[in-house]
Order: sequence, then structure tokens, then C-alpha cells
Amino acid sequence: SQSDRYIDLHYSDVQLTAHKSCRQRWNIRPSEMSINTLNPIRAIVDGMKLTPNPEKPMIALSIGDPTVFGNLPTDDKVLQAMKDAIDSNKYNGYAPSVGYQKSREVVANFYSCPEAPLEAEDVLLTSGCSQAIDLAITVLCNPGDNILVPCPGFSLYKTLAVSLGIQVKLYTLLPEKSWEIDLQHMESLIDDRTTCLIVNNPSNPCGSVYSKEHLQNILSVASKHCVPILADEIYGDMVFPGCTYQSMASLSSDVPILACGGLAKRWLVPGWRLGWILIHDKNQIFGKEIRQGLVKLSQRILGACTIVQGAIESILNDTPQEFYHRTISFLESNSEICFSELSTVPGLTPVMPSGAMYLMVGIEMEHFPEFQNDVQFTERLVTEQSVFCLPAFEYPNYFRIVVTVPEEMMVEACTRIREFCQRHYRTCSQDSNELDQ
Amino acid sequence: SQSDRYIDLHYSDVQLTAHKSCRQRWNIRPSEMSINTLNPIRAIVDGMKLTPNPEKPMIALSIGDPTVFGNLPTDDKVLQAMKDAIDSNKYNGYAPSVGYQKSREVVANFYSCPEAPLEAEDVLLTSGCSQAIDLAITVLCNPGDNILVPCPGFSLYKTLAVSLGIQVKLYTLLPEKSWEIDLQHMESLIDDRTTCLIVNNPSNPCGSVYSKEHLQNILSVASKHCVPILADEIYGDMVFPGCTYQSMASLSSDVPILACGGLAKRWLVPGWRLGWILIHDKNQIFGKEIRQGLVKLSQRILGACTIVQGAIESILNDTPQEFYHRTISFLESNSEICFSELSTVPGLTPVMPSGAMYLMVGIEMEHFPEFQNDVQFTERLVTEQSVFCLPAFEYPNYFRIVVTVPEEMMVEACTRIREFCQRHYRTCSQDSNELDQ
Ligand SMILES: Cc1ncc(COP(=O)(O)O)c(C=O)c1O
Ligand SMILES: Cc1ncc(COP(=O)(O)O)c(C=O)c1O
Repeated sequence: SQSDRYIDLHYSDVQLTAHKSCRQRWNIRPSEMSINTLNPIRAIVDGMKLTPNPEKPMIALSIGDPTVFGNLPTDDKVLQAMKDAIDSNKYNGYAPSVGYQKSREVVANFYSCPEAPLEAEDVLLTSGCSQAIDLAITVLCNPGDNILVPCPGFSLYKTLAVSLGIQVKLYTLLPEKSWEIDLQHMESLIDDRTTCLIVNNPSNPCGSVYSKEHLQNILSVASKHCVPILADEIYGDMVFPGCTYQSMASLSSDVPILACGGLAKRWLVPGWRLGWILIHDKNQIFGKEIRQGLVKLSQRILGACTIVQGAIESILNDTPQEFYHRTISFLESNSEICFSELSTVPGLTPVMPSGAMYLMVGIEMEHFPEFQNDVQFTERLVTEQSVFCLPAFEYPNYFRIVVTVPEEMMVEACTRIREFCQRHYRTCSQDSNELDQ
Repeated sequence: SQSDRYIDLHYSDVQLTAHKSCRQRWNIRPSEMSINTLNPIRAIVDGMKLTPNPEKPMIALSIGDPTVFGNLPTDDKVLQAMKDAIDSNKYNGYAPSVGYQKSREVVANFYSCPEAPLEAEDVLLTSGCSQAIDLAITVLCNPGDNILVPCPGFSLYKTLAVSLGIQVKLYTLLPEKSWEIDLQHMESLIDDRTTCLIVNNPSNPCGSVYSKEHLQNILSVASKHCVPILADEIYGDMVFPGCTYQSMASLSSDVPILACGGLAKRWLVPGWRLGWILIHDKNQIFGKEIRQGLVKLSQRILGACTIVQGAIESILNDTPQEFYHRTISFLESNSEICFSELSTVPGLTPVMPSGAMYLMVGIEMEHFPEFQNDVQFTERLVTEQSVFCLPAFEYPNYFRIVVTVPEEMMVEACTRIREFCQRHYRTCSQDSNELDQ
């Protein structure tokens, strides 16, 4: 019987219909999936002819990394937590693929609230919020399904979905309503292959923070059409004073939610790659199967670095409130500077954010006839003023400003943008016609 | 034109053939991919009725994590490198998706050799060797393609491939030839949809280290049929004195190779999740496209924790040789203890390893008629002797012993295995017939 099994083994994997012709020459092609993995930011940045004005030092308002200028360091407690984790010698081995039980418990306690209680079993630790989003999309969607994604929105949703053969439907956000979702438009996109609604609150790139009412309205649509929500809450709690952040899950009575978050933004350590999925499923609609699916997917490459996992208890519990406040105050102050500066620039319409790290600026294109679109506008802003802002992909005539740069830089950038706009601003032909009459 | 673009935007993503029927009730199913993500180790371990003998403390010889018993700590220099990286405050932001340039350069220099030179551009840093393998398989294979995988072999290859819709063909390793590949069998499996040959040297679970000649023979087959190689060399350089390790790439004249490795095993920090892909492509057969494909795939969720990336220079360059020697000596000594103990156990055929952290033991099943197969054998070893070894999946009648446990434990485990075998060993009926005559 040993030899029997041996034979079974040999032949079970030989296809009956094997194509026995082999290759005669090298012909290695990258897979469809790698070809379909598109990163629009890279495409834009690489495609731009970037020759900044040599007389002005470059100011990049494009990078969503709060650490690059050194003005927003993480807290010493956060660093100490890492060093303690290293010294403990307890966190060098493999963790379970979903993360250490203790670390999951700590995250659960940190985010648990009476309206949406969490236990360790509801938490998966991941390699950054990006892997959290990847696992969430991957467990909910098959190729051919579709997901609803905000526009303007974080480009990774589309990158991940398209690479997996999942269709992306963009729902529109309304700048005139502080970037609330156009609910009618969103609802009109739902069909029977819609398996996930992504809501990003607070928002990249808008800096918007949704009211309780708006979140409830979103939940109503999801509930009506039985579509689960992926709540990207990586900027959760990063809201300016006077504004309140509510998690999607705390308002949901029935809609099951995978809430994705991580250390990257609030704790200012994006490189450390610790993220999480919080499974909110009061009514057992995801049930065991989605949980098991997530666990199985987590076993493919495992998750976050164990040192960071070991440090998470102290990071979440010992970081002083003062640290969070300082970050928020800075972001608010920079946003106000930027907003008030650009509000008086002819042809621009900045939208004041309520949180996160971004501010969106509308371009009244009819006043800039030299440029066909936002891409050309932002390109010339580089070559003339050495100020680099990213256009808001897929959303016309807006660009995004990252407000984490040092204050002097923010001020200088605004001055240059003003100069640039003053130079290129034209009264509309329609307006001039009116004047002519 | 602003409103034109707006309309484009709205309608471009609405399918003409939209299924407008929406769901009326909740029905969330895990995706095919999550269902098809199978982890055979989990399946076996969960499926086993594990009630160890309460009178004997459990000895797990099953876990490929060298850190669990505390007897194999990493080097102090490695820990210090991490703390220095934290103190520098330079490694908290996002790294490029393929890793810091400097860190890639350091890895390139460490593994570069005259026969297979490497530059920073040839290195991608990943979240563990697992992500390296994932990216390598994903870039080379489309659904419907097939890959050649060693049997017995590390189960992750199959887990990843099957979840991606890639077919797995198992080629046989020959215990009587120190687990060399049955080259004829391997070659017989190649067809025109074979897009990757995985070679794991030194091997998990075999502990084998291939000779130069054998590696050259493998390369000849790959070259003849134009199949690129994924060389899983995570146990590279972990070979016992007297034996020489050669990387696949150092022997290849034409076959392009993606060599996967990482810090997990040699530096004894598997939880830190730093791995790499080394692209070896002397003749530009992978060309720019496979490189770009890998870069694009790396952008999906990004790679390794930046603190570990920042520490890698010092980890690779400052870890004393003594540390590596100490680990190897320990592994060799434990392997010899285990091998010599089990060699004299009736019914067992251990195979002495030459490297890595494992030793395979053959079970002469005809002498253990109480058990139908290796799974039943190892199950009873748990319930009677509280010794847990993993059966070698897909390869009949062998089990794997992890030799990283403390020496006393190794000795005690062998004693118990002997007791177990003595109790269950039966002279073969065939033999007894012969005796009868
Ligand atoms: C909205 C949003 N979600 C997710 C992420 C990814 O977070 P991480 O760096 O933890 O993967 C980002 C990063 O910029 C983001 O802006
Ligand atoms: C042969 C082999 N390759 C790859 C890996 C995965 O390594 P990592 O933990 O760095 O993902 C292992 C882990 O046991 C292994 O044995």
C-alpha cells in the first residue's frame, strides 16, 4: 500500500488533457494580475514632465506621509514601546496569522463602544491598513462583482479591486455639501453584483468628516440593498475641535461592517505597517464564514511585524492625549492658513476640511484657458513655481494639498500658488461678452 | 467642458448590461479565493484529535519557529540594530514599495557573488519570505498555468498557487538519494503551461542540501524547457560543516531566477517579517516587464516594516560570524542526536539532514499494522507519548522533526518515540511466513 500511495501521488497531478508540447524558447510574460495592478499616482507622477523652476526650491504638497519634513514626530512613548518590545525578547517568533491574541484584545478594547462592542476575536492585525483593505475586498468579492468607491477617493481601492478582476463603480462626492456622498447617485449604481460599499471617513483626499445624519443615510442605503460596508477609518478620531467623529459601526443596527484602520496616520508611523480589521456583525450576517475566510486569507503571507504587535498595548494605552491634540491643532492651523490664503486667490475654490490631513482646492477652469485640465494646471505649477500638488484623480478640476508640511512651507506654497493664479487668470470670454454689451 | 468630464465620470462606470435587480435580503458569501485558500497544516492540526497523554508533558517537534523554546535567541547586535533604527527617527515614514534604496543595496551586496552579481535594483524587500514567494508566483503565473513544486515540500507554495487558480504539480524527492529531485519525474510534468519551477534548497521539510552537480542538472531541465526558477533559499547558508551551500543563481548561465529569502531563519526572527526577492537575469529573459510587474505588485500593500528595513544594514554586516556558527553547530548536534537515536529504532528510517532545521523520518508502515498511515501514526504518538510531529503532507509514510528544540527535549522525545515504536512494532506477516517455512 506504500507503493500504491506513491503511485497515486505521482499521477494524481498529471492532467489527462496535458498539453505535452513544451516551450522551445524563452518567453516569460508578466501575469495579467501584475499587468492589471495600476497605481494612478505613480502613473501621474511618472508621466508628469517634472522640471521645477530652478530658482525656487521645490515644495511637495503631494505626499501623504506626515513624517517627511520632521515637524510631526511620533510620541516618545510610541518609540519607547517599540524598544521595550525588543528588550522583552518575547516578540521575535511567529505570531498567529491574525495577530497575537493579547494585541487583538488591546485593539478591541481601544475601539469598543457600547453601540458597537468588540472582542479580541473581532480583530485581525494586518500589514498596514492597505492589507486590511486588501483582505476585506478579497473576502467579500469575486471577479465580476463590483464595489462602490468614493470619487474623489483613495486610489488603492481601485488598484486592488481591478487587479482582482473586480469592477469599480465610482460614486460622487459633493464639494458644495462638504464632500457628502451623492446618495442618489450611489444608490443608482447598486446592482445584484454589488458586494461591498467602501466609505472613507474622515476622507482622503477631502478632509471631510461626515455627520451622524449623513452616516445614518449611508447606512440606510446599504441596509435597503443589503450591501456590506468596508469603512476605511484610518483617519478616525483625526478631526478638528468642534467636529465630532463617529465610527460607521457605532451607528449601524444591521449593516455588517469591516472597519479598517491602523497606526499609520494618528500615530504618525506609516512605515511600521500595522493595520487592523474590526469585524462588526451584530446580527451575524457575515457569520462564521466571512470570519473564517478572513482568517484563511491572513495565512497567505501573515501580517504585521511582531515587534510592533508587541508594542501596540503601550502605544494605544500610554500615548498621552496631549500628543493627539498637538497633531490635530497643527493640522487645523495649517488647514486654516491654507484655506484663508487660497480663498482670496482668483479662480480657486478651496474647501475647508474638518479632519484628516488634506484640503481640496477647486480650479475654475474657465478662468484658466491656457490649461485643458487639472493635470496641466498642476504640471505648470511645478515648472513655474516648484509647487507640487496632486490632481484629484477621476474627479475633474480639483487638486489636493497635504497640510502636514511645516507652517512656513505652507505659507510660501500659498504665496506661490497665488502668484501663479494671478499670472494665468483670465476673465471668462462669457463674462467679457457681457462686459462688451 | 467641466460638466462634460463630470458626465463622463458618472456614466463611464455604469455597465450597459447592468443587472438592475438588487438584493432583497442579506446573503454575504466568502469569495472563491478565500474558500480556496487552504492551509494543509491547519487542516491536519485542527483535524487531529489531540489529547496528549496527561502523564507526560507535551513535546512539540512540529513548529518551524526556532524561537519558541528560548534556546536559540537572535544575536544582541540584531536587537541593537533595531533599537538604533528606532532612535534614529529616520525610519518611521513610508519606504518605497520595494524597500529603501539603501536597504536593497545592502542586501544586494550581501548576496552578490562574481557568478551572480546583484545590484540594488535587483532586490525587492517584502513582508517575509512568504510575500516574496507570493509576489514571485503572482508575477509569473496566470490562472490555468501550472507550477512545479517539491514533494515533500513547504505547503505555502500550494496554498498560494491554488488560491490564485494556478495548478500545482508535485515532483518527487528521493529519500534514498538524500532527497534529490527525481529529475525524470519532474521533467515529465512540464508542459506548455508550466510557468515556474520551485526549488527549495536547503529544504523544509527534508533538511537536504543539494550538490553543485544536482543543482546543475535541475538547471539543465529548466533551461531545456525554458521554465524560470523560483529558488526558495530561506535556509541559504544554514548548512552543516563539511557541506557546501551554493545558490541556484551562482550556477545558472541562462535560466532566470527569482531567489526568495529573508531574516526569519538564519537570524532567528521570523516574526519581524522581512524577506526579499533577488532577481537574477543575466540574459534579460525576465527583462523589464517582469521587474515592472514585481514593482507594481509590491504597490498593492507595500512591504516590510521600515524599522527592520532600517536595521538591515547593521544586521547583515555586524552580526558576528560566531552567531551563525553557534546556530549551525546546535542544529547539527541536535540532528545527530536525533538521527543516531532513531536509527536504532525498529521500523523507523531517519534521513540525516545536511542543513536547515528539520529531519525526516520514514515509517516502515508494514511493521506498524495498527496504523493505516502516517497521520494515524503521528496521532497516536501524541495520545500515548505526548510527542507531536507533523506528517509530511502529500508524501506517504514520513514525518518531520524540527530540530530546534533544546537538547534534553530532543533526547526525551527520541526516547518516547522509541518506546512507542517498540510497543507497536510487528514483524511483517511476510517475514513471519518466511520464518514459518
Ligand atoms: C484613506 C486611506 N486608507 C488607507 C491608507 C493606507 O494606510 P497604510 O499606510 O496603513 O497601509 C491610506 C494611506 O494614505 C489612506 O489615505
Ligand atoms: C521553505 C520555506 N520558505 C518560506 C518560508 C516562509 O518564511 P517567512 O516566515 O519569512 O515568510 C518558510 C517558513 O517556514 C519555509 O520553511
